[in-house]
Amino acid sequence: MLGESARLRVAVLGASGFAGGELVRLLLAHPHVELGHLAANESAGRTVAEVHPHLAASPVGGWVLAPLDAASAADQASVAFLSLPHGSSATLAPALLDAGLRVVDLAGDFRLPAAAYPDWYGFEHPATAWLEKAVYGLPELFASDIAGASLVANPGCYPTPVVLGLAPLLLAGLIEPGPIVVDGKTGLSGAGRALAEATSYAATEESVRPYRFPAHQHTPEMERALELASGIPASVSFVPHLVPSVRGVLVTCYAALAPGATTDSLTDCLASAYGGAPFVRVLPPGDMADTKRTRGSNLVELQAVADRRTGTAIVAGALDNLVKGAAGQAVQNMNLMAGFEQTTGLTATAVYP
Amino acid sequence: MLGESARLRVAVLGASGFAGGELVRLLLAHPHVELGHLAANESAGRTVAEVHPHLAASPVGGWVLAPLDAASAADQASVAFLSLPHGSSATLAPALLDAGLRVVDLAGDFRLPAAAYPDWYGFEHPATAWLEKAVYGLPELFASDIAGASLVANPGCYPTPVVLGLAPLLLAGLIEPGPIVVDGKTGLSGAGRALAEATSYAATEESVRPYRFPAHQHTPEMERALELASGIPASVSFVPHLVPSVRGVLVTCYAALAPGATTDSLTDCLASAYGGAPFVRVLPPGDMADTKRTRGSNLVELQAVADRRTGTAIVAGALDNLVKGAAGQAVQNMNLMAGFEQTTGLTATAVYP
Amino acid sequence: MLGESARLRVAVLGASGFAGGELVRLLLAHPHVELGHLAANESAGRTVAEVHPHLAASPVGGWVLAPLDAASAADQASVAFLSLPHGSSATLAPALLDAGLRVVDLAGDFRLPAAAYPDWYGFEHPATAWLEKAVYGLPELFASDIAGASLVANPGCYPTPVVLGLAPLLLAGLIEPGPIVVDGKTGLSGAGRALAEATSYAATEESVRPYRFPAHQHTPEMERALELASGIPASVSFVPHLVPSVRGVLVTCYAALAPGATTDSLTDCLASAYGGAPFVRVLPPGDMADTKRTRGSNLVELQAVADRRTGTAIVAGALDNLVKGAAGQAVQNMNLMAGFEQTTGLTATAVYP
Amino acid sequence: MLGESARLRVAVLGASGFAGGELVRLLLAHPHVELGHLAANESAGRTVAEVHPHLAASPVGGWVLAPLDAASAADQASVAFLSLPHGSSATLAPALLDAGLRVVDLAGDFRLPAAAYPDWYGFEHPATAWLEKAVYGLPELFASDIAGASLVANPGCYPTPVVLGLAPLLLAGLIEPGPIVVDGKTGLSGAGRALAEATSYAATEESVRPYRFPAHQHTPEMERALELASGIPASVSFVPHLVPSVRGVLVTCYAALAPGATTDSLTDCLASAYGGAPFVRVLPPGDMADTKRTRGSNLVELQAVADRRTGTAIVAGALDNLVKGAAGQAVQNMNLMAGFEQTTGLTATAVYP
Repeated sequence: MLGESARLRVAVLGASGFAGGELVRLLLAHPHVELGHLAANESAGRTVAEVHPHLAASPVGGWVLAPLDAASAADQASVAFLSLPHGSSATLAPALLDAGLRVVDLAGDFRLPAAAYPDWYGFEHPATAWLEKAVYGLPELFASDIAGASLVANPGCYPTPVVLGLAPLLLAGLIEPGPIVVDGKTGLSGAGRALAEATSYAATEESVRPYRFPAHQHTPEMERALELASGIPASVSFVPHLVPSVRGVLVTCYAALAPGATTDSLTDCLASAYGGAPFVRVLPPGDMADTKRTRGSNLVELQAVADRRTGTAIVAGALDNLVKGAAGQAVQNMNLMAGFEQTTGLTATAVYP
Repeated sequence: MLGESARLRVAVLGASGFAGGELVRLLLAHPHVELGHLAANESAGRTVAEVHPHLAASPVGGWVLAPLDAASAADQASVAFLSLPHGSSATLAPALLDAGLRVVDLAGDFRLPAAAYPDWYGFEHPATAWLEKAVYGLPELFASDIAGASLVANPGCYPTPVVLGLAPLLLAGLIEPGPIVVDGKTGLSGAGRALAEATSYAATEESVRPYRFPAHQHTPEMERALELASGIPASVSFVPHLVPSVRGVLVTCYAALAPGATTDSLTDCLASAYGGAPFVRVLPPGDMADTKRTRGSNLVELQAVADRRTGTAIVAGALDNLVKGAAGQAVQNMNLMAGFEQTTGLTATAVYP
Repeated sequence: MLGESARLRVAVLGASGFAGGELVRLLLAHPHVELGHLAANESAGRTVAEVHPHLAASPVGGWVLAPLDAASAADQASVAFLSLPHGSSATLAPALLDAGLRVVDLAGDFRLPAAAYPDWYGFEHPATAWLEKAVYGLPELFASDIAGASLVANPGCYPTPVVLGLAPLLLAGLIEPGPIVVDGKTGLSGAGRALAEATSYAATEESVRPYRFPAHQHTPEMERALELASGIPASVSFVPHLVPSVRGVLVTCYAALAPGATTDSLTDCLASAYGGAPFVRVLPPGDMADTKRTRGSNLVELQAVADRRTGTAIVAGALDNLVKGAAGQAVQNMNLMAGFEQTTGLTATAVYP
Repeated sequence: MLGESARLRVAVLGASGFAGGELVRLLLAHPHVELGHLAANESAGRTVAEVHPHLAASPVGGWVLAPLDAASAADQASVAFLSLPHGSSATLAPALLDAGLRVVDLAGDFRLPAAAYPDWYGFEHPATAWLEKAVYGLPELFASDIAGASLVANPGCYPTPVVLGLAPLLLAGLIEPGPIVVDGKTGLSGAGRALAEATSYAATEESVRPYRFPAHQHTPEMERALELASGIPASVSFVPHLVPSVRGVLVTCYAALAPGATTDSLTDCLASAYGGAPFVRVLPPGDMADTKRTRGSNLVELQAVADRRTGTAIVAGALDNLVKGAAGQAVQNMNLMAGFEQTTGLTATAVYP
């Protein structure tokens, strides 16, 4: 475990995307961390200011992004964040781990069993030994495993609120394990920074549309994490949608309600599961989850309702996909790994309105 | 049945809201219709231009909105559209009908059985005899009833794509009747024109949130219309959401898939049900429904997918809530009632992007 | 002049961009026109439905876009609209004209004197003889020239409201000729359909920014058209801005106010200049121009205010950049050329909200 | 001057509006400050969580807003921020000052000479003695006056970038004093939290429109502050516009260019004026100011261009109207008054995208 006296030197590999930029923003504000290394793939050689103009006035605005290289990262940091396209971490993380770094991977490369990769991600996993050692980095459920992990698989933006919202209810027997319907809505930052007509302003404003279903790779992640957390195998049918927003994920989950369960019993179960969790806000009955209230913060809002007429439990969860759904959760995981308070550097409230 | 030679004189009662304004816009472009009477409740005495500045340059820009009065409407029109808050039509429509007009009601006052009104709308229905004669105005499913009706209950914005998307599948035995999950997303025009902080720009941009569930009054309407169309009682759990958009409703429906059903068989079933329907576009497998492509037009897009892994049928439907979800469908109903081609005045394609 | 009895066959060359799609949308609704030929450059070989999914359900949804070729166009049409990137029309239009078509060019290739092209557009004009015969297609000011023209240069989106708003005031001596400040704001459809990070949703929402100034090519077009219309040489300093919107251009023009001029005298001058103009709405003092009220329609709103304290005349103008700022104005020009009523096919009111 | 050892206790009077909520957000993150008192007018008696749901999870979420009362504020704080509608501070601030507090007023009540209030704000100023002692709180220009002030008039959102952008150029003789055109664009949070149809989502999306000109009360504030900073009387013609955004002000200023001035000389002048200013970023020639890059941060971006063809200097400035345009600047002023580093609590970079 790392001490708090000296600053922890960290690296961000894949610093040019949206999640990478958010990692830099959050790490700049972290009192116990020093940025030691920023690297990128196609953007290597460009400055942070060129790639992220909003960081031009920051202390790292003039830094030149290094190429992706495990040895250089190991020279300059003891913890590495990987924020690369799916498939890249699976080969880069082992090199970093072998060089002695601890790693938080923001891609999907260490979230599933090896057997699932060909179907859901389209590749054979090249590092199954490390895959077995990876810890799923949902701090509210797996904090102690994370604290001792060398390799943390940071959860996806959709699975985070789904698993937080459903796992305690499954465990308590208040909902049935499946099939559970998950209807997800995301802003455009969730689609990444690559150019496409579908993510242009002209095509997006006034557009609401589903995408990539039923094959979205977050589906098996939800199923696996629910089973990890509750011990109960669950089946999920998941449809993600793009809505005209930049940040924010809202998931609405529908499961069969156990006999006798009520809005109050669902809400109490969640409230008691997350009583000490600083980033989870369980809404009182009647309040509605709202992505806007989480913008820029590490908060997740959870709301549970029993539709007793049809026997359906409905759980809504809202978060900022780049913070609690990506970079903020990664910093939270790093805090646990380093022995810091998990809220360190993450106390900012949402920028509202 | 009304002849096509002379222009049909129509009245709009409740012309000051969003759906009322849309009715005026569409009726102005209708070749066989003449606006005879425009009335409003609180806005009576104001001009169309004051209430709808975008219609200031139109031929009715200078008209003064009359107060709501059945006799005046009957003097100036033979068909009346009612676009008033829920509860108002239940008393006004009978007076109009008794005065000899035919009526298309855009509110929910004639869509449910009498027994459902106290629970879902909060009032005892005052005109149960007319309620029993009212025809549910979904032209693709009930065209012949509509043609002969005196009173048409124009469907709600959410039920329209839900019923169009699910009824043929229920009837064909490709999906199970329940509980069916309906996850709805609407733009802000669906919330009406009344002022509220929740519908302000500052509170809405970057906000995705559910509202008024599980008690939304479109729930029993979906259940009833599905049964009317298929003969099979269905149970629906419905959660509507507000997303940052002005127009557009997207519904995503989840039902248990019958054994053996596939994306192709679901799609074929819908395509064959709506082969001759000018306003329904069944998307080929792989294409995604998109509200933006319907903006300003009377089109509804339907998409069906079989998630065979979990045994779930997923049907997405998109439309413009003020056109096919309200005023356009009302004009389509009027066309059927008057013996016009149902597409008359409704052929405009979407204003895109 | 073409007769009204038979339908006029028209071609759209460059049908794949935003203005091209809008031309198709408007021409489909035109009662005296038949689409004869649709062509594109890079999108040749694709169907209209692939390129413009919102037109998939229209009668031309299945058409395959032809390659750009003057002879084919001449076989199938007597009027051609060119909606191509700047520089393409300068070579294609002469071939079409030589083949006997009349041409409306939506690019900037025939709007300026030959000498201006190297500086403002970056090329030597290849067809100066035709350039001299081209008529500037602002129907409210040059209707009679347009009626007899073979080649009409359809104005730019920004110059249209600027010239309509300022020319009568210049001519009447109510404002001074310069330098006049023009501050323009446009939605993203004005940036065209080519992909760029700057036009992505993530970069655009919550972003207001100037672009390409003081070298924007609409600057000399404003100066030249003001002089054409008023006989007075004017000097314009123009800064365009991108705002988070899809359609809509608002220009705010600032000129030195002549002694004695007032808000009323400015407004009266505009009202009298456009008394018979069906698409110009001069707002009464106190009303504010609003792009939203023009969305989807061929309307332009003009507002004039005298800031007597500082001696400044302020003229604001609003329009839909794809309609009155491009395709709608092009159809209006075609109407004049063909001897139709200029409002034919253009009477739709705005889709609001 | 207050020491840094103990925490400074501060009050926010008018904590329920957008700027009030932003003050609370920023002050919660300030290491040397303790919130001592939160008060409101109409919202007194409600909790912070009710009024600002995004602060529900913060340490003050459960606080009940006190009524406006100088004595109570004085008991619990030594510095008071006033964030009330124009006209309220003029009577409340003197009571707070008499009770020994130092005051930062975010309204316009202490920004102008007494004689200007009837014309521009519609009231006779009731506290002209204090008005004369008030210091205009633009820290980059008046830091030493602010440090010693009892009463600071925090600048308006529009005047901040205008004065920062123009004052050094006026002083250096690079631009002429007038009339200067200022074209402003703001997001909806600038319109405040009061309900109005004009600020609804339905009326705002896709709408760009000017408002309240030429009588906007920031006009004389710009003129006065420019003269305070440069010694040169300036004349400003100002038109503000609403654009579909929540945060962000962009101003585009047009002044007559002095002979010989160039983009480089304008840029150098600004860069040298703000070389040590931590919150001002002068953009290199070619870069464009962008409100989005300032969202949530105290940064202001300035860009200067010489349009030598027309003899016009163009200066664009961008900021977040709730931070550098209101609450952030107020905290910056408090830092100066208390002897803290002016960046304390204000180092967060923008939340982008």
